[in-house]
Amino acid sequence: MPSQSTRGLYLEPRSVVFVGVPRRSGPGSLNPVDNLKKWAYQGNIRLVHPHVSEIAGIPVVPQVSDLNGPADLAVISTPRETVPGIIAECGKLGIRAAVVTVQGFAEADSRGADIQRLMVEESRRWGVRILGPNTLGVSNAFSRFNTSFMPMNREEVPVGVVCQSGVFFVGVKQLIGGMGMGVDVGNACDVGITETLEWLGSEEKLKVIALHAEELKQGKEFIRVAEQVSRRIPIVALKTGRSSEGAKAAASHSGSMAGEDRVVDAALRKAGMIRVDETQEMADLIQAFRKLPPMKGPRVAVITLTGAGGILLLDAMERYGLQRAQFSDGTLDAIQALSPEWMPLSNPMDIWPAVMKNSMKTGYGAALKGVLQDPNVDGVFCLTLGLESDEQKSLGAEDLIGELAEKYQKPVVVWCYGSRYDDAAARLKENYAKALPVPSLERGIKVLAAMARYEGWRQRCN
Amino acid sequence: MPSQSTRGLYLEPRSVVFVGVPRRSGPGSLNPVDNLKKWAYQGNIRLVHPHVSEIAGIPVVPQVSDLNGPADLAVISTPRETVPGIIAECGKLGIRAAVVTVQGFAEADSRGADIQRLMVEESRRWGVRILGPNTLGVSNAFSRFNTSFMPMNREEVPVGVVCQSGVFFVGVKQLIGGMGMGVDVGNACDVGITETLEWLGSEEKLKVIALHAEELKQGKEFIRVAEQVSRRIPIVALKTGRSSEGAKAAASHSGSMAGEDRVVDAALRKAGMIRVDETQEMADLIQAFRKLPPMKGPRVAVITLTGAGGILLLDAMERYGLQRAQFSDGTLDAIQALSPEWMPLSNPMDIWPAVMKNSMKTGYGAALKGVLQDPNVDGVFCLTLGLESDEQKSLGAEDLIGELAEKYQKPVVVWCYGSRYDDAAARLKENYAKALPVPSLERGIKVLAAMARYEGWRQRCN
Repeated sequence: MPSQSTRGLYLEPRSVVFVGVPRRSGPGSLNPVDNLKKWAYQGNIRLVHPHVSEIAGIPVVPQVSDLNGPADLAVISTPRETVPGIIAECGKLGIRAAVVTVQGFAEADSRGADIQRLMVEESRRWGVRILGPNTLGVSNAFSRFNTSFMPMNREEVPVGVVCQSGVFFVGVKQLIGGMGMGVDVGNACDVGITETLEWLGSEEKLKVIALHAEELKQGKEFIRVAEQVSRRIPIVALKTGRSSEGAKAAASHSGSMAGEDRVVDAALRKAGMIRVDETQEMADLIQAFRKLPPMKGPRVAVITLTGAGGILLLDAMERYGLQRAQFSDGTLDAIQALSPEWMPLSNPMDIWPAVMKNSMKTGYGAALKGVLQDPNVDGVFCLTLGLESDEQKSLGAEDLIGELAEKYQKPVVVWCYGSRYDDAAARLKENYAKALPVPSLERGIKVLAAMARYEGWRQRCN
Repeated sequence: MPSQSTRGLYLEPRSVVFVGVPRRSGPGSLNPVDNLKKWAYQGNIRLVHPHVSEIAGIPVVPQVSDLNGPADLAVISTPRETVPGIIAECGKLGIRAAVVTVQGFAEADSRGADIQRLMVEESRRWGVRILGPNTLGVSNAFSRFNTSFMPMNREEVPVGVVCQSGVFFVGVKQLIGGMGMGVDVGNACDVGITETLEWLGSEEKLKVIALHAEELKQGKEFIRVAEQVSRRIPIVALKTGRSSEGAKAAASHSGSMAGEDRVVDAALRKAGMIRVDETQEMADLIQAFRKLPPMKGPRVAVITLTGAGGILLLDAMERYGLQRAQFSDGTLDAIQALSPEWMPLSNPMDIWPAVMKNSMKTGYGAALKGVLQDPNVDGVFCLTLGLESDEQKSLGAEDLIGELAEKYQKPVVVWCYGSRYDDAAARLKENYAKALPVPSLERGIKVLAAMARYEGWRQRCN
């Protein structure tokens, strides 16, 4: 059997031993073995528990030294005082990698910090790498492996996550939108953000990485790795502890310093990372980078059915650094012919009068096709209706938008409004890969702006 | 029959005549009569159309002069050149109020601006008030009346809307969250924002007003009315055309000037209005003011199951002007006893270790009750799990939160996370009036911050 890299030991272990697994399994037990069974993990699972002989149908041995040989990975969840000794036992057995899930270390009190130091000493002495403590560990939908004691769903999506808290695993739906591969470094006493970012950054299956950090150690090395990864795929970074109160709390949460925020900010930008301030923006950008073709410049065309919507978008474009596209000669001519003579078209292009004069299909179709073909347009924002099915037959444009977005390789975001806006958005999401429904006008603009910034950095860099 | 006020003619008309109604009715016809039938409007409906004798079972006369007497309100949707003449005919018949829904006036070309001027002259000459043009008109769920040709749902919710675009009627779900009573002033050639804000501001059924304006005319009078209304109920104001591009577009959309934004901003704040920059914030604040008790100061307590979540909230609190509550002596003692000794509690209060040591009910219940009773706490942010039903039995806290929020009169916002976060949020929304589920950490903080700012203004003012 070829020896695994550290990356492989964590993300694709062929065998795992859980030390300190709960006695019970099944609903409410928070037993990580349940997750592995649900995910149909194909590797070997062994369990260590002092008081029971079987858990979830798997035989149990009382201590690590009773195991018949090593495993690729040990997952440790025993009272904190016992962990340094268990690390040593793992090392003696030839186990080279461990996840320490339990809390109560440097993030808690000074006694916890002392134990964490001892644990790191044992880890160095015996050559056992440690992920954690205070972590849910790793999750890899592609290898059907995870170490989380909180329930997890498996999704083979091209999204990597490097984080410093289990909330990004448990709350992955809202915070990220979906995760194919993730590492929670917790207190990061050994395996840290830089190393795991490098693991995920070289992963061909991933198209975007979400990074959550409370602290960035080894600044230069981190920036080197981040820049290298960013040349290939975008990193959306949520660096918390920006506020003075938040920085103090970060120090106590993961037992570390958050760093001077302005310095951090400049470094992240220089390395091509897309920094976000708020969690919702992170989820929005991950979806956008995952789905949309590159936004090659800042010039946006807006197709709208409401003048007020167009104005709201212009306000947002200025706020977030995008430009109103100046259409090429000829782009407006074909569409202007469909509009009443009293309605002069520009950008935002209010095509409601043209729709009333002709039909949604004719009016919207001509407008969208026109701007997608225009070389002065880098991305398109569409406003469209989602009404009851009877009305939607004549006034729906989501299929039209989805099909045209598929054909021309430019990012298209879509805001659906009306009594059944959610149906229209769901239809777009399910049936079309290249048109992204956005929940608000401004969120769509923020998405396009971040994509344009990233592409600008990449063009300057490569 | 007592004569109606202008407000009554528009919002509670006893009779209405549609001039220029579509020939067809039913799905896809965009016939406003369909809305009135769906809403079971109890007043008298008459129709004017030159070429048909019946529409949707209602007899039709060829022109306004053929009507047998006046109506409280005329809704006009005929080609723009004909409108001034129709206004005159309405006046001759004794009709005192009209809605002009059609487009093609000052927002379009110079010919449209000329016709709009003519229309206003006729309106003054004959004493006919005009709402519009370029508007969906009015909507009043309580009187079962609306003039919209776009399909509308009726909801008797305590939310008023004054807007300058039909997108707030059609997109009411996403932009406002629900509307009980609304007026779209469109180009505002006669009836304007100030007057309609006064109508809605005195309405006992309303608890909050959403205001969308592209332009604010009669500055002093507007501010006087807004301040008067704000003393009673909050006004959430989205004033668009902030950007230079947006201001230009606003001028063309409603044919008016947007005004110097900094001046506008200062005036709105002075009058107690809550100004928002983005549509999503408007919807969030409307829901919060509609549901939650007042936030009497800026001091927030956080109950969390994740340290990282607490740090994100501290960052957001500093960004939006809230404070971390300093608990009174004794508040932490009872909860600290439930937590492992290695876990020192503070604010944000990470009670995951206490939950693991005891149970969700014991740990979360003691913590939330403690902070709600603390006089140093003005509002509470709860983080809670939404998992599959089996796990939710032991780890769900939404009922607990809903019940305690009901008991103590302090605003409680709740962020649910986990694979079934939406179920937990829906359960809170449906079963409990006083705990507001929020879609992201930062959006919850923005809500509390705006509520605290409004209450601060009101305390200084009253």
